[in-house]
Amino acid sequence: MRFFENKVTDIHIAYIGGGSRGWAWGLMNDLALESCISGDVRLYDIDMEAACDNEIIGNSLSNNVSAENEWRYKAVETLEEALTGADFVVISILPGTFKDMESDVHAPEKLGIYQSVGDTTGPGGLVRALRAIPMYAEIAAQIKVCCPDAWVINYTNPMTICTRTLYQVFPRIKAFGCCHEVFSTQELFVRILKEFRSIEGAGRNDFKLNILGINHFTWIDKATYKGMDLFPLFSEFTERYYEQGFDGPPPEAAEAYFDCGHRVRMDLFKRYGIIVVGGDRHLSEFCPPWYLKTPETVKEWQFRLTPVSYRVKELGKRIARAKKLVGGEEKWEIEPSGEEGVLQMKALLGLQDMVTNVNLPNYGQNTGIPLNCVVESNVLISRDSVIPLEAGKLPDDVNSLVMRQVINQETIVKAGLNKDRELAFRAFANDALMTASIRDARKLFNEMLENTNSCI
Amino acid sequence: MRFFENKVTDIHIAYIGGGSRGWAWGLMNDLALESCISGDVRLYDIDMEAACDNEIIGNSLSNNVSAENEWRYKAVETLEEALTGADFVVISILPGTFKDMESDVHAPEKLGIYQSVGDTTGPGGLVRALRAIPMYAEIAAQIKVCCPDAWVINYTNPMTICTRTLYQVFPRIKAFGCCHEVFSTQELFVRILKEFRSIEGAGRNDFKLNILGINHFTWIDKATYKGMDLFPLFSEFTERYYEQGFDGPPPEAAEAYFDCGHRVRMDLFKRYGIIVVGGDRHLSEFCPPWYLKTPETVKEWQFRLTPVSYRVKELGKRIARAKKLVGGEEKWEIEPSGEEGVLQMKALLGLQDMVTNVNLPNYGQNTGIPLNCVVESNVLISRDSVIPLEAGKLPDDVNSLVMRQVINQETIVKAGLNKDRELAFRAFANDALMTASIRDARKLFNEMLENTNSCI
Amino acid sequence: MRFFENKVTDIHIAYIGGGSRGWAWGLMNDLALESCISGDVRLYDIDMEAACDNEIIGNSLSNNVSAENEWRYKAVETLEEALTGADFVVISILPGTFKDMESDVHAPEKLGIYQSVGDTTGPGGLVRALRAIPMYAEIAAQIKVCCPDAWVINYTNPMTICTRTLYQVFPRIKAFGCCHEVFSTQELFVRILKEFRSIEGAGRNDFKLNILGINHFTWIDKATYKGMDLFPLFSEFTERYYEQGFDGPPPEAAEAYFDCGHRVRMDLFKRYGIIVVGGDRHLSEFCPPWYLKTPETVKEWQFRLTPVSYRVKELGKRIARAKKLVGGEEKWEIEPSGEEGVLQMKALLGLQDMVTNVNLPNYGQNTGIPLNCVVESNVLISRDSVIPLEAGKLPDDVNSLVMRQVINQETIVKAGLNKDRELAFRAFANDALMTASIRDARKLFNEMLENTNSCI
Amino acid sequence: MRFFENKVTDIHIAYIGGGSRGWAWGLMNDLALESCISGDVRLYDIDMEAACDNEIIGNSLSNNVSAENEWRYKAVETLEEALTGADFVVISILPGTFKDMESDVHAPEKLGIYQSVGDTTGPGGLVRALRAIPMYAEIAAQIKVCCPDAWVINYTNPMTICTRTLYQVFPRIKAFGCCHEVFSTQELFVRILKEFRSIEGAGRNDFKLNILGINHFTWIDKATYKGMDLFPLFSEFTERYYEQGFDGPPPEAAEAYFDCGHRVRMDLFKRYGIIVVGGDRHLSEFCPPWYLKTPETVKEWQFRLTPVSYRVKELGKRIARAKKLVGGEEKWEIEPSGEEGVLQMKALLGLQDMVTNVNLPNYGQNTGIPLNCVVESNVLISRDSVIPLEAGKLPDDVNSLVMRQVINQETIVKAGLNKDRELAFRAFANDALMTASIRDARKLFNEMLENTNSCI
Repeated sequence: MRFFENKVTDIHIAYIGGGSRGWAWGLMNDLALESCISGDVRLYDIDMEAACDNEIIGNSLSNNVSAENEWRYKAVETLEEALTGADFVVISILPGTFKDMESDVHAPEKLGIYQSVGDTTGPGGLVRALRAIPMYAEIAAQIKVCCPDAWVINYTNPMTICTRTLYQVFPRIKAFGCCHEVFSTQELFVRILKEFRSIEGAGRNDFKLNILGINHFTWIDKATYKGMDLFPLFSEFTERYYEQGFDGPPPEAAEAYFDCGHRVRMDLFKRYGIIVVGGDRHLSEFCPPWYLKTPETVKEWQFRLTPVSYRVKELGKRIARAKKLVGGEEKWEIEPSGEEGVLQMKALLGLQDMVTNVNLPNYGQNTGIPLNCVVESNVLISRDSVIPLEAGKLPDDVNSLVMRQVINQETIVKAGLNKDRELAFRAFANDALMTASIRDARKLFNEMLENTNSCI
Repeated sequence: MRFFENKVTDIHIAYIGGGSRGWAWGLMNDLALESCISGDVRLYDIDMEAACDNEIIGNSLSNNVSAENEWRYKAVETLEEALTGADFVVISILPGTFKDMESDVHAPEKLGIYQSVGDTTGPGGLVRALRAIPMYAEIAAQIKVCCPDAWVINYTNPMTICTRTLYQVFPRIKAFGCCHEVFSTQELFVRILKEFRSIEGAGRNDFKLNILGINHFTWIDKATYKGMDLFPLFSEFTERYYEQGFDGPPPEAAEAYFDCGHRVRMDLFKRYGIIVVGGDRHLSEFCPPWYLKTPETVKEWQFRLTPVSYRVKELGKRIARAKKLVGGEEKWEIEPSGEEGVLQMKALLGLQDMVTNVNLPNYGQNTGIPLNCVVESNVLISRDSVIPLEAGKLPDDVNSLVMRQVINQETIVKAGLNKDRELAFRAFANDALMTASIRDARKLFNEMLENTNSCI
Repeated sequence: MRFFENKVTDIHIAYIGGGSRGWAWGLMNDLALESCISGDVRLYDIDMEAACDNEIIGNSLSNNVSAENEWRYKAVETLEEALTGADFVVISILPGTFKDMESDVHAPEKLGIYQSVGDTTGPGGLVRALRAIPMYAEIAAQIKVCCPDAWVINYTNPMTICTRTLYQVFPRIKAFGCCHEVFSTQELFVRILKEFRSIEGAGRNDFKLNILGINHFTWIDKATYKGMDLFPLFSEFTERYYEQGFDGPPPEAAEAYFDCGHRVRMDLFKRYGIIVVGGDRHLSEFCPPWYLKTPETVKEWQFRLTPVSYRVKELGKRIARAKKLVGGEEKWEIEPSGEEGVLQMKALLGLQDMVTNVNLPNYGQNTGIPLNCVVESNVLISRDSVIPLEAGKLPDDVNSLVMRQVINQETIVKAGLNKDRELAFRAFANDALMTASIRDARKLFNEMLENTNSCI
Repeated sequence: MRFFENKVTDIHIAYIGGGSRGWAWGLMNDLALESCISGDVRLYDIDMEAACDNEIIGNSLSNNVSAENEWRYKAVETLEEALTGADFVVISILPGTFKDMESDVHAPEKLGIYQSVGDTTGPGGLVRALRAIPMYAEIAAQIKVCCPDAWVINYTNPMTICTRTLYQVFPRIKAFGCCHEVFSTQELFVRILKEFRSIEGAGRNDFKLNILGINHFTWIDKATYKGMDLFPLFSEFTERYYEQGFDGPPPEAAEAYFDCGHRVRMDLFKRYGIIVVGGDRHLSEFCPPWYLKTPETVKEWQFRLTPVSYRVKELGKRIARAKKLVGGEEKWEIEPSGEEGVLQMKALLGLQDMVTNVNLPNYGQNTGIPLNCVVESNVLISRDSVIPLEAGKLPDDVNSLVMRQVINQETIVKAGLNKDRELAFRAFANDALMTASIRDARKLFNEMLENTNSCI
């Protein structure tokens, strides 16, 4: 890298999962819009064809009139090649195939266990973790060799487990995990402010939220908008919308899998008096099966079970689009992704400090969770530095729900790294959604590992 | 009290709940069998008639040929009278009536929530706690005034909550809670040793068990018999009997409400690798509804739901017996109760040290649970001293189940002492058995409080 | 307060110790230079004449050509009048008289105990604390009544003890303590960078220092300048200057009481491998008497014992200047004080975030020191919010030196609030500088309390 | 081993340091007096001649009329031979020669650092530790191989460091460290009871003392004699004897090196309100140089500096006696040593439970000291089991003195195991007695390591 005044050039980014048509495209967009940084992006993916497509798409952006600079993209064949000399490493991979995910999400249904996402916790999330852990162990080991001082940004789920694995394998790594769940909560507040207080045009950054918990099961115990306490407001909101839901998907709506009526969020507010950040579909998986008992329960709570078939269909559309972009049949419109990855890089380069929420080992920022477990909290990002802001701790009852998950996550990481199948089953059987008998749980566990060719 | 060599005379015992026909009768038996201690017992009960009956029964024991001494019994009209100058205080009360207990145990059934006991945790245990807490607050306040140096032994459930309340109100109190659940586990080991190792005549005291957890949800992580590790043995036992159960009640057996086939204990051993101490009917209430989902589930797991109607019937028999004893129609046969209360008193008098398990605030004996919460562990009892033995901590996953209960118990104690109904509901809704919606839970909570004239 | 765009008007500041001719004058300067904030400052001081002088001086600033706005100053007669409705409270008082301080600093010398400052720790600091604690208890109680939502900035020593007292008396107070010791360390780095790396023009804000410890005994375990690790540099510096000192005061220099050769700082670096922030004269008081054994030892270590006579003389000069300013004989030149108080206010008003080091109760930012004790660390200051940055913990051996002080401070606060003279003596006798026998210590303690009319 | 009723035969004891003429002779005595245990003792010593002498002496005891059994003694040539198959391992070695100890104790005197013992802490204790650590590492490694289930009793100083090393190298070891300092405190209480309360014949076991701290710096915060609180009594004692001392050695007495007037103990009682267990000569080394400033200070405090020349002379006498015993010129009188080693073995064999104080890793018994550091507390010893009694924690100010030592001990163990000379120096320079400059400390450290051929 070279630093001049407020510019940095010759930045090397390694993108692991560089064939991605989601996070990678977002990053390309955002990089193209920054005039103060430039360099190259090495795209590594086990799907080399997808990486090559992205090389073409990425390089074509420079010709775009909105582009503020010229980033060079290059698909590479090995992890080592991508990482060597990298200043930043971005990781967004799919740990396994959609066929694996089909098993993760749907196999447990035969025991009456429904998962709305299946990539973070629950039986599906844990089996996915067992695939992801060796991949992350390998990545961490290579980073140690090829670019030990690089900053590593992870987007893959299960977020907590992937990030924890990086630190277990290479404790001095400079890694953190990012998730956009908080953004949608900020946007919900914008809408509530408008409806309940007639405040127009509140921006995401006008909110101060104290973030506590773990990824996808994250909570806010203090929230202000320009100094105004948002808790009384959220209380009014809950009073008005608890029963009917707030702007939930019409029951008959096809494919509105990411929409929800915020009833789970409101229900948890009524139970515990604090506000959850995660979306209903994620956080319902961390609770006892209050919200996921049956598909009908899910419907009542106004969220959706995302079927893997939908993901397959969506991917088909994206692949088709990629081919058009590569072939020049479609032209890319550069527009901000709304994600923060590039802003975080700029902050790490010293161009502009920022406060945001990320996932990091607990250095003390959450005093209710053991040190070193990965937690989500606000951090201050500045030149070569990510420092957690002290967040305090959750109310004891909420914390005990979180701790049950933390302990299962710790167990699964240990099981995955040591290839200890019995230990992995122990976490599986102890999952909050696991209502089946130990015998059925064992059978399901074996089946799910077999379905997904798990090497544990 | 007067001490001579190995004798102590003029001991004053206050018995709160002195009309009891269970624990009180046991104590009378055991006191009569000790030649080295003597004194008087003041019986206080809100049912004065029952206390007067016990006065007559107790005093009659001295005439019994097996009696080793002469204890004087006296029913008294006020708590103050009972406590003033007491050296020991024994508490075994029923917090409320059987009609209250009827509501505690059975009201939740309409929401599909089944409780096998209903006096310790679960919705019933928590509502019972709300009745017990003010009673214990009153007792503690009177002890502070009338006999601050007395040793206080509690037998009432919910054990943890009652004991915690005593310490909250009078922090310098010398109190502990006793429970016999460990004895039956020791007896189970005796039977297993006989069947699997052909060892005859093992005695309860030949076992060394490291005790961890909270009352009725207590675990053993180390167990030896004369230096022999019992874990491999318990593993064999589980292999042989997991499916069929060990000596469970025949499905058609009437009223075998306290019997069980130890299948829950074996299931938890398979899940977590350590042995639970509590009986199946108690500990199933602390888990997610794995064992209490429906009455059929309970049957499969080979334990029973104890209906309150049974308790009413049993009490009727005991009252009838009391009347016969008072009237001299039946003669009392003095025999050891198998309980340890009198041994504990002797130890506290310095007559003979003992090691046993009791419930005490956590001074550090359990390093996985916050200080001051009431935990069960082994202690050394000697002259005027009860010192916990360091027990270490439970495996993390088991500990997280225990912690969820600990936190609910802490919450309910706080709610009960401050008469904070909202806080009490928070614990109620967060109970491990509470599968109902927050709305139904709220309705049930209100109904149960109304049923039982709760003053919260 | 009224907020418009990037301006805030009608701000009310209460200045306790408003007759101050040090911190107060600095604040007046800095307020005058800010165009975006305005309001009034109420000056309260037990020396009403001094407050009235400052009213005149403060109001005259508006006429100054460099003034960017018009702040109104007003001396008030009661604490209540000053505080009512305040948005900010600034406290810089002298706890007692210079005669008291004469006793604090010099009385212990007869036992061979030398103090270079005597206002923070050591026998003098502790006796001063006993005077300050009731004053701060009174201030906190009044803030609770008059302006519970105000932000309170404390400058008075003993910093830790004063800040702790505020929180003990009014736990919801929004207070922090500020000290400029870190600035001089930053300036030392600027000079070292110039001499050892030929880097010119490094600014105070180009340094990132991780701050750990307690006020005046504060340490840095990570330090970078624009991404460059400063530890190897400080090591070189120590190698070159350890023996001779770096720019220490000439031995014969009169009155250079605040200068030092940084030999203590270098010595502690050699001992513990991390860098102290505090100046030599402060931190030598926290160590065993390594540096303060005799006046000769002090000289060898190239720092100075500040005699109270010097402070008296300096004050005389300042009073004379005040009179000239009031009388118009001297004209005020407005210039930035170099302090951060006004920047902090702007940040709290939401005008511009800042990261700086302040003293706050430990919410977890220092994982080596018990929660709630007051520690110094970096914080993020933004609209109505001061959030500590997680700082980790000191190396164990350094932490044990700090903990000895923390415990003494906690003891003295408790003693001061409860007027418990015996407890206060316990801290006094346990002070790191207290080498005298318990008998001599007791005599000294009584004498020092008598000298200073202590009400304990 | 073979167990019959209340007898155990065929016990194998390995004695490391088996040429010892102190602890070993005591053990021989005590073993000879026990009718319920028998077996053999393998004596290993680098001084093979001494071990052979002890073989002869030990075997001769069986012929003694007072002997209750027949133990066989055998000097062996290797550690492995001694340990293989051992049921118990006793370790009492001298880590180095008296010439080494001469350097440990007296070399620091040139810098004005006086040590009354020099084997536990202080510069001498730390350098001795650096010799002991590799020896203990070797012993632990061999125990792991030769007798992993043996119980290991350590008598060697520095006790804490030796015990900690055993656990660091072989974490599953069943080891504890024993010290008789508590006995002499019990005997002091016997004398005080007689003088102040006219109570005759109090026995050591009539006292209940709650033991807290680390070996030789151990404290009691609760003490009773048959239920009587001993603190008011100790307070009276201190009032009467603080100035004059209690039965201290006459100033002119030659060689009364182990006597003291208990003035240090009383002084610490006046400072901190609790009672120290250790003798004055040991505990003065753990404090700042309050009691060891100069030889005159020591005299005033009525204890003695034990010169190594005295130890040499005493050893000469013992060697001479050994030769007489071997040659049959002197006949052995069997008499109880007053030590508890054999009682502890009997308890571990299940013959009789006992409560005593030993040194063990902290499992939670001391809540003020980090887990795993070696602490001294009461324990319950029973069949194959040593369980700490929960002891709570020291008052904060005392704990901070103890923690400084704990941290130095942890550092020196780490330094010794990793042969990290710089780290060792860090502890050396941070010792509570180290008043010299860092330069002089460094010079002394190098010299002391050279004097003693340290391999670090």
